[in-house]
Amino acid sequence: MFSVTIRDHLMIAHSLRGEVFGPAQRLHGATYVVDATFRRATLDADGIVVDIGRAAEVLRAVVGELGYRNLDDEVELAGMNTTTEALARVVADRLADRARAGELGDGGPELDGLEVTLHESHLAWASYERPL
Amino acid sequence: MFSVTIRDHLMIAHSLRGEVFGPAQRLHGATYVVDATFRRATLDADGIVVDIGRAAEVLRAVVGELGYRNLDDEVELAGMNTTTEALARVVADRLADRARAGELGDGGPELDGLEVTLHESHLAWASYERPL
Amino acid sequence: MFSVTIRDHLMIAHSLRGEVFGPAQRLHGATYVVDATFRRATLDADGIVVDIGRAAEVLRAVVGELGYRNLDDEVELAGMNTTTEALARVVADRLADRARAGELGDGGPELDGLEVTLHESHLAWASYERPL
Amino acid sequence: MFSVTIRDHLMIAHSLRGEVFGPAQRLHGATYVVDATFRRATLDADGIVVDIGRAAEVLRAVVGELGYRNLDDEVELAGMNTTTEALARVVADRLADRARAGELGDGGPELDGLEVTLHESHLAWASYERPL
Amino acid sequence: MFSVTIRDHLMIAHSLRGEVFGPAQRLHGATYVVDATFRRATLDADGIVVDIGRAAEVLRAVVGELGYRNLDDEVELAGMNTTTEALARVVADRLADRARAGELGDGGPELDGLEVTLHESHLAWASYERPL
Amino acid sequence: MFSVTIRDHLMIAHSLRGEVFGPAQRLHGATYVVDATFRRATLDADGIVVDIGRAAEVLRAVVGELGYRNLDDEVELAGMNTTTEALARVVADRLADRARAGELGDGGPELDGLEVTLHESHLAWASYERPL
Repeated sequence: MFSVTIRDHLMIAHSLRGEVFGPAQRLHGATYVVDATFRRATLDADGIVVDIGRAAEVLRAVVGELGYRNLDDEVELAGMNTTTEALARVVADRLADRARAGELGDGGPELDGLEVTLHESHLAWASYERPL
Repeated sequence: MFSVTIRDHLMIAHSLRGEVFGPAQRLHGATYVVDATFRRATLDADGIVVDIGRAAEVLRAVVGELGYRNLDDEVELAGMNTTTEALARVVADRLADRARAGELGDGGPELDGLEVTLHESHLAWASYERPL
Repeated sequence: MFSVTIRDHLMIAHSLRGEVFGPAQRLHGATYVVDATFRRATLDADGIVVDIGRAAEVLRAVVGELGYRNLDDEVELAGMNTTTEALARVVADRLADRARAGELGDGGPELDGLEVTLHESHLAWASYERPL
Repeated sequence: MFSVTIRDHLMIAHSLRGEVFGPAQRLHGATYVVDATFRRATLDADGIVVDIGRAAEVLRAVVGELGYRNLDDEVELAGMNTTTEALARVVADRLADRARAGELGDGGPELDGLEVTLHESHLAWASYERPL
Repeated sequence: MFSVTIRDHLMIAHSLRGEVFGPAQRLHGATYVVDATFRRATLDADGIVVDIGRAAEVLRAVVGELGYRNLDDEVELAGMNTTTEALARVVADRLADRARAGELGDGGPELDGLEVTLHESHLAWASYERPL
Repeated sequence: MFSVTIRDHLMIAHSLRGEVFGPAQRLHGATYVVDATFRRATLDADGIVVDIGRAAEVLRAVVGELGYRNLDDEVELAGMNTTTEALARVVADRLADRARAGELGDGGPELDGLEVTLHESHLAWASYERPL
């Protein structure tokens, strides 16, 4: 199995609902360093998993929809606790949607799976892995 | 599949038995940067894999049992070569025991698996992965 | 010249005022990984620059005053653009105040200087360096 | 499942064929930081996955066959686009050949699998994973 | 003293002349992860050392003049051994030229100094520091 | 001013004397990731600060004198608290001795200064900087 990973980041404000979050129930924020991994059993005719330039643009588009915002105000995330693990899924699902829509090129639909990791600090990170 | 990883570290002395270890047969030591990964297929009602604050406390407790010690003198590790890979298993198994005992909260027993990675330097690390 | 550096982090929400900040004029947030460096020309009788345990507690106290907050609402920061470089100075100045007040122990006032670096992402960081 | 990973690196020149590569169609180069992971279900009598000293020598030998060269001129790679993902497979396959030939010692053939990751920058990396 | 650092990278082919370089006399290549540090004694009216967006564009422009090329063929570098330390100076000098030409905005000429670090691997890096 | 830095590491056992060290008064150990920086105002005729191959060998020799040992038993360190900052000085002083003895080649004595950083974990490191 082959994989290619590219890194980007986003900076957001948010608050978390639930006693388990302690002081993170207050409005605060985070930088998420985002690693998006694309998996495929075989390489295409060019010898790649995915066009890394297009993949970087698609990842930039997805994180651009979230970044420099207060996630508490985002209609599309309403009712959701925007934990690191939940946001990893949001990013992964949006990448999968764009891959199926052809934004990664012809090879996109041939991907076997995706994994997205969000690093919230040097001490903690969360991932979501899914098939395509 | 979701996962959350938290990082801690421990500093120990030890020696390794066996010609394969060369100069590491002498009493020496290591800093292990410890990454503990908790895996779960679905998020709980708060939108998390595990209460990261409790998980950090539990990991701190487990590494605290080992750190600032000469592992050659630890009764619980007697007869064991305390290689990086063997210590990764010790940490993972102790985390699993505590998860099953409820120390990670109600969600602990619902974890699907654990992985522990011990980084012994910028050039080498070892992991042990197990179901819960 | 000797130095010792310790790492901590804080997570905040804020917005920045001025066209130069583009989308960062909106309420967003950041994780700052904070490196605090303590400099001293000679070591003390214990062979150290500073008691690293106390230094870590003092740094934790300083970042604890800022973290998990919306900096736009902090009275002490009113009227200040909380850029990464400006926050590096806030942290350094507060560490210096605490060092002079004896919180780092007897050796604190013998420090020659401090440097604080705030990493806002894997692509950008800012520092402030000052004498003690 | 246990694993041990060791890190080395290689520096090469090459060009890539295909419009998808844009400016990387020109002769340029890369440093690849190489992580080789060895997997095994159980530890051997010494408590290890693999003799890390021998594994480091074998990895050094494999990257030594590629490093400080223009890959466009290498007969063994003729006709192949030397993308990061393709090179990850070359390194993994050569490690597997040497493991089966006994260069990793008696435990080599008992490895369950290998994974090789090549980091081409702080923003992108590729992996190839295979059974042994 | 304040500073801001931004990171970018470039990938090049080259060869080095001189017996001291051993196998690096052959045509090979490197990824250089480039850290550009901008220093200034005081912050401007916006509370910044430099407009980080413009600084990133200027750094991108400078590394874009060098990247995805065989440096042995670059007329502007003719007669120069393109070692990591020499390239750090090329990048720093070109950033300084652009700062003085106003490309960093009004604050550019008020910078006190620049430092450029090129990381050639996880094991080696080189820097060049200069006043503005 | 130019600089070149190379990274190596050592793994040792030791104990520290003094109440300030808390649990680190017990025999324990550490991995120190060692960064040695060589500074020089101008490059030599080859365009380098120092022959990086020779510098790596000299650093390896210096860390080899300390590694895989219990520093409490080393005669040359008797009476010294082997803190991270004190060990940074030991490494720097030994590098300086070897540079003056010609082990770095003809350019060694022309170095302006040295800095050695020892990383004891992902959370703490110490440096010693000296002229040559």
